[in-house]
Amino acid sequence: MIEPSIALFGEAFEEASRVLERLLEETQARYALLVDRKGFVLTHREALWAPPPPALDSIATLVASNAAATQALADLLSEDRFSEIVHQGKDQGIYVEQVNELALLVVIFDKDAPIGRIKLYGKRAAALLDRITKKATVDAGARKRNIGLDREYRDSASAMLDDLFGEA
Amino acid sequence: MIEPSIALFGEAFEEASRVLERLLEETQARYALLVDRKGFVLTHREALWAPPPPALDSIATLVASNAAATQALADLLSEDRFSEIVHQGKDQGIYVEQVNELALLVVIFDKDAPIGRIKLYGKRAAALLDRITKKATVDAGARKRNIGLDREYRDSASAMLDDLFGEA
Repeated sequence: MIEPSIALFGEAFEEASRVLERLLEETQARYALLVDRKGFVLTHREALWAPPPPALDSIATLVASNAAATQALADLLSEDRFSEIVHQGKDQGIYVEQVNELALLVVIFDKDAPIGRIKLYGKRAAALLDRITKKATVDAGARKRNIGLDREYRDSASAMLDDLFGEA
Repeated sequence: MIEPSIALFGEAFEEASRVLERLLEETQARYALLVDRKGFVLTHREALWAPPPPALDSIATLVASNAAATQALADLLSEDRFSEIVHQGKDQGIYVEQVNELALLVVIFDKDAPIGRIKLYGKRAAALLDRITKKATVDAGARKRNIGLDREYRDSASAMLDDLFGEA
């Protein structure tokens, strides 16, 4: 079975969750997720006023898949990395910031939320989460490995895309 | 074999290429591509001053893959679609705009290029390309089908991700 690269237990889990909670308060965003680059939700928080969240596991897998493809695009253009990603829809948007080579920060916000503020506090939260997740890395070697997709991850992402797109 | 959904020949090809050429002149961007959502380059243009382009076929596949995952994210959040996508690197950036359910417009630009101008003229070019590609659709039914990934496409995207990430 595919396993997350980061094991967030006990104090590290509480600490990471508090960072997300504070980020929600600072930005008035709906949901904040700390996501393993393999597509696992490590911890997440919802604003008190927010409606029940959408399928966060699916969002985590798609965001991780997108981040890997975007990194490949950056490599092709000889860029070290691309900056944060913002997708803005009619009513909601998603902001994705790199925490480090193992994790991503995802913030889902309403159309009225202040994007500049989300970026500013998002980057600060990502720096805090970088410190917390590095201490919780499962495999010390993983920190040094390049970001990659393993076969199991891709198979599970493919299966989910099948579901989402209703393909046979 | 997987085939593009759009066959751009003769006049339609020339017309689409002229739209890209004009877009490069208007925006001072480096490269402009019209890409099938299955990942094929339909036509592309380079600015006269631009260095030889990176692997445009790989860029097309990754952009198409990203667009499909982004559409899945939009569906999960009950958004009709997300607006255009901009990835900004240290030296270069990528702008992706939806042409229609079959094609994407991709613009690669230098860090000094005016993003607002690229978005403005990019949207106008996308509207022109929408008209041109709709006339060149291979399968009349394709226009009505939902955006999807077929198995062959995913297999070829997986194989390329393997190459790019150096996985076995």
